[in-house]
Amino acid sequence: MKIITISREFGSGGRELGKRLADRLGYDYYDSEIISAVAKNSGMDARYIETQLDNHGWQKFPVTFRGTIGSSAYMQASKVQLLIEQKKVIEEIAALGKDFVIVGRNADVLLHAYDPFKIFVCAETEAKLLRCKERASEGENLTDKELLRRMKSIDKLRAQTREILSGSEWGDPSSYHLTVNTSGWEIKALVPAVADFASAWFEK
Amino acid sequence: MKIITISREFGSGGRELGKRLADRLGYDYYDSEIISAVAKNSGMDARYIETQLDNHGWQKFPVTFRGTIGSSAYMQASKVQLLIEQKKVIEEIAALGKDFVIVGRNADVLLHAYDPFKIFVCAETEAKLLRCKERASEGENLTDKELLRRMKSIDKLRAQTREILSGSEWGDPSSYHLTVNTSGWEIKALVPAVADFASAWFEK
Repeated sequence: MKIITISREFGSGGRELGKRLADRLGYDYYDSEIISAVAKNSGMDARYIETQLDNHGWQKFPVTFRGTIGSSAYMQASKVQLLIEQKKVIEEIAALGKDFVIVGRNADVLLHAYDPFKIFVCAETEAKLLRCKERASEGENLTDKELLRRMKSIDKLRAQTREILSGSEWGDPSSYHLTVNTSGWEIKALVPAVADFASAWFEK
Repeated sequence: MKIITISREFGSGGRELGKRLADRLGYDYYDSEIISAVAKNSGMDARYIETQLDNHGWQKFPVTFRGTIGSSAYMQASKVQLLIEQKKVIEEIAALGKDFVIVGRNADVLLHAYDPFKIFVCAETEAKLLRCKERASEGENLTDKELLRRMKSIDKLRAQTREILSGSEWGDPSSYHLTVNTSGWEIKALVPAVADFASAWFEK
């Protein structure tokens, strides 16, 4: 079973890269919203996950987690419990035995035993700001300053969660096989090169 | 003109990667020892550089710089002067107009105007120790502790020099296009994937 994990800075395009990579390689695809929705709703039944997530059934899941992840009160209260649930879901996914790409959720740490190909996606601040603005939902008009603050706080949360789980530093290049800076790239143009890299890793 | 710059942690195999990359892509190859030797010996004559360095004539250069780079007294006394000389040499090389790979010497910063593809090469400490031992010259039997100290001091020097030149942080992934962790790889096996990545960058 081949697993590619993607950790990423907020606004770097890591999720798009993961999705496109999965499409190109014919792998299943999971991301943080899927995992969280499943962890909260399903009671971690493997068959349920398979049915719902396979064949991209995941699009039906309510995507409400993004709205709450920045809320520190919510995270403080239920963080550990949520991490445990997510860990279970991720292990259930691995137990399906199919190749997959997974974005976020510290899957690189949680799936360490499966020797995944670990990618970290970053970008220069300017590039991330631009991407956030392009992606912004209708009516969501944050200033650069607000966006920067949001970026920082989400990345800080990611770094903290990783530290709780692994003791190792989030974003430290020697914790990943490949660190890709998406500044100046169209994500689409990056995909073949990243896919080749991962394939070389699995073939060696 | 296509330029690939390689910055690297001591012991990560960055130099070997650079050399093999140049061979694969048919680019010229330069590294810190070459640049330093030329800066010290040639008086920066472009024709001299071309004659000596082209077709790998560089192997004839005395490789004495490695022995002195760790000496802080030497570096303190002539650091700025040496940086200026090296900068001139690197600019002369770029002026030749031929594609090249260059390892070290903050070429990523110095050649910024040429929009090079910038690679940072790192590895886990254990992997770097192993590589240093494999590479060690006859009679050079440093303990792990001594090697670690050497690794740290050389990397510190590299980080400081970069900061003097650019104000940006050495090893910060968003300062490079690609950061490659060589742990667990034979450098040889990495080369095609890295070459494809660089080609994708130049083609976009």
